Amino acid sequence: MRHYYTFPEPFELELGGKIQNLTIAYDTYGTLAEGGGNAVWVCHALTANSDVADWWPHTVEKGAFLDPEKCFTVCANIIGSCYGSTGPLSVNPATGKPYYGDFPRLTIRDMARAHSLLADHLGLRRIHALVGSSVGGFQAVEWIAAEPRRFGRLVLIATDVKASPWSIAIDETQRMAIRADATWGEPRADAGAAGLAAARAIGLLSYRGGEGYNLTQQDPESDTLPDDHRACTYQRHQGDKLVKRFNAYSYMTILDAFDTHDVGRGRGGVDAALRRICCPTMVVGLTTDIIFTPAEQREIARRIPGAVYREISSPLGHDGFLVEHGQLNAILNDFL
Amino acid sequence: MRHYYTFPEPFELELGGKIQNLTIAYDTYGTLAEGGGNAVWVCHALTANSDVADWWPHTVEKGAFLDPEKCFTVCANIIGSCYGSTGPLSVNPATGKPYYGDFPRLTIRDMARAHSLLADHLGLRRIHALVGSSVGGFQAVEWIAAEPRRFGRLVLIATDVKASPWSIAIDETQRMAIRADATWGEPRADAGAAGLAAARAIGLLSYRGGEGYNLTQQDPESDTLPDDHRACTYQRHQGDKLVKRFNAYSYMTILDAFDTHDVGRGRGGVDAALRRICCPTMVVGLTTDIIFTPAEQREIARRIPGAVYREISSPLGHDGFLVEHGQLNAILNDFL
Repeated sequence: MRHYYTFPEPFELELGGKIQNLTIAYDTYGTLAEGGGNAVWVCHALTANSDVADWWPHTVEKGAFLDPEKCFTVCANIIGSCYGSTGPLSVNPATGKPYYGDFPRLTIRDMARAHSLLADHLGLRRIHALVGSSVGGFQAVEWIAAEPRRFGRLVLIATDVKASPWSIAIDETQRMAIRADATWGEPRADAGAAGLAAARAIGLLSYRGGEGYNLTQQDPESDTLPDDHRACTYQRHQGDKLVKRFNAYSYMTILDAFDTHDVGRGRGGVDAALRRICCPTMVVGLTTDIIFTPAEQREIARRIPGAVYREISSPLGHDGFLVEHGQLNAILNDFL
Repeated sequence: MRHYYTFPEPFELELGGKIQNLTIAYDTYGTLAEGGGNAVWVCHALTANSDVADWWPHTVEKGAFLDPEKCFTVCANIIGSCYGSTGPLSVNPATGKPYYGDFPRLTIRDMARAHSLLADHLGLRRIHALVGSSVGGFQAVEWIAAEPRRFGRLVLIATDVKASPWSIAIDETQRMAIRADATWGEPRADAGAAGLAAARAIGLLSYRGGEGYNLTQQDPESDTLPDDHRACTYQRHQGDKLVKRFNAYSYMTILDAFDTHDVGRGRGGVDAALRRICCPTMVVGLTTDIIFTPAEQREIARRIPGAVYREISSPLGHDGFLVEHGQLNAILNDFL
C-alpha cells in the first residue's frame, strides 16, 4: 500500500544545500507485529520504485522471504527518483516550478538518511532485517554503518561497499550518451529522452552480460541476413520502455549519487566502517554478474565481521537477482 | 610504407550497389622473398589503420612474429574506414561530393573481397599466414572460407566466426548513442561527434572489462569525494581522442558491417564453412576478454579442423591483445 510522508523540517544534504518539504513515497506489506520484531526494510535499485511486489516478483508472497503474513515490509522510493518521492520533476517551493537541472546533487548517504528519518516517523526504532540489492545495497550498507544497532540482520545482494572504477566508468558512459542529446538540460520532463534511451541500453549491457544476451537474443537460424537483429530491437525496446516511465533528470541524479558511494568516507575507511556491523550478515553474489562480480561479493563478505556468502547460479548476469526468486527465497527464508 | 591501389572496375557489394574507383590504402613491411613464401597478411580491427607497427606495438620488429627481416607483412585499411581507403568521407564520383550518409552498406565479406583483390594485384597468389584479431579476425575467417587454399597458416585472435547477440547488442547501443546526437546525419565530417564520443566510451567498456578498469582507474585514497573520478575523465578523454581521429560515418559503416558477420552465410552454416579451412590454425583467447571470451575462442578452435588453442593471460580484457606483445610473440613466433 502506497503512503507518503513529508518531512516537517528542511532536509540537509551531505554536499550542501537543503530540500524543503521533502516527500518520501513508501509501500508497506503485511502487519507490524506487537513489539515490532517483524519489520523488514528493502532498499530498491536505480530505476525501481517502492512497490517491491511489482519489481521483485515472487518475493512478497506466501512462503517467500517477504511473506506478508509474517513480515511487515517497508520500501521507500529513493529521493531524486520520480515515483512519488521528491526529485527533479517535483516543484521547487522556492520558484514554484519543477527543479529539472536545478535539483541539488545527492549522495547515497542522503538517501540512507531519508530512509532513517522515515523509519523514525514510522516508530521503527529496531528493524529485524535490512535488505538491499544493487544500488539498494549501497543504501543498506550506508545506513547500517550509520546506525549499526538499529538492525537485526543484513542482506546485501550483488552490490558494493564503494563504487568501483568499473561501475563509475559505466555511469560516466551513460552520462556521455545523455549529454550527447542536445535536448538534455531543456526545462521539460522529456529533455534528453534519446540520450536516456541509449543510457539505459548501456546499463542493460552491464546488467545482463554476454551469457544473458547469447541465451535470450539469438536470431532465428537463417541463410540470409535478418532485416534487424533481435539484439538490436531488444536494446531499442528497453531504451524506449525506460523513457516512457522515467526521466533523464532523475536518472542523472541517481547516477551521480551512485558514484559518491563510499561507506568508508569520514569513517576511517571502508574496513573500519564495515567493522561497525554487528548483526548477522549475508552477502549474495550471482555467478555471471559482470558489474558486481561474485569475486567482489565474496570479498565484501570477508570484510564484514562474521558475514556469510551465498551464491545464486544464473546465466542472466546481475539481472538474475530479479529473476531467480526460487534460489533467493531458499537462501533468505532460512536466514531471515 | 603506405601505398594506394585503385580498382580499375566497379566494386560490387554483397548487399547490392557498387563503389566506383574503390581505393585501398595499405602498408607493407619487409621484403617479399623469392617465391613469395614469407608473406603475412594482417587484418586490422574497428578503428585501426594499415600501419600495423603503429597500432600493434612490438610486433613489427626484430625477433617479433612480424620481424621485417623475415616477413613481408601487408595490412590494408578496411573499406568504409577513413585512413586512406574509400569510405563515407571520400568523394562520390557520381555527385562530386563526399558520400556521408549515402555511403552504401558494407559486409565483412565485402572487406575480405577487397583484401583479396589487393592481394591479386600484389601478385600474392599464395600467402604464408593470415592473421586477424577482433574484427580483423572476422575478415580473416571470412577470407579463408572464400579462398581456403590461398593460405599456409591462420591465426585468429579474440574474434568470432559469427557476430554474437551480445556483440550486436553492444554495437546497437553505440548506434543509439550516435543517433541520440541530433547532428548525426548532417552532411559534414564531424556530424554526430558527441554521440561518437559516447559510442567509443561504450566500446571501451567492452574492450577493457571490470578487471581492467579497477586495475588502472582507481582514484587516489582520500577521505573526501573527488571532484571528478579518474574513470570519468578516462572515458571522456578516450571519447574525445577518437572524435579527433575518426568520424561517425565510418564508425557506423563498420559497426553495421560487424553485425553482418556470419562465415556460414550461403555456405551451409558456420561448421560447413569452417571445415573448408585446410591449413594449420591457431586460435588465441585472452583470459579476461568479456566481448570475445576465452570459452568462445576455445569453441572456435574446436570447430576448425586441427586447430590449436592458446591463451594469453592479461587483466586488460580484449585490449590485452594490443598490449601483451611478449606472450603474443612467444606464441606466434613458434607457430609462424
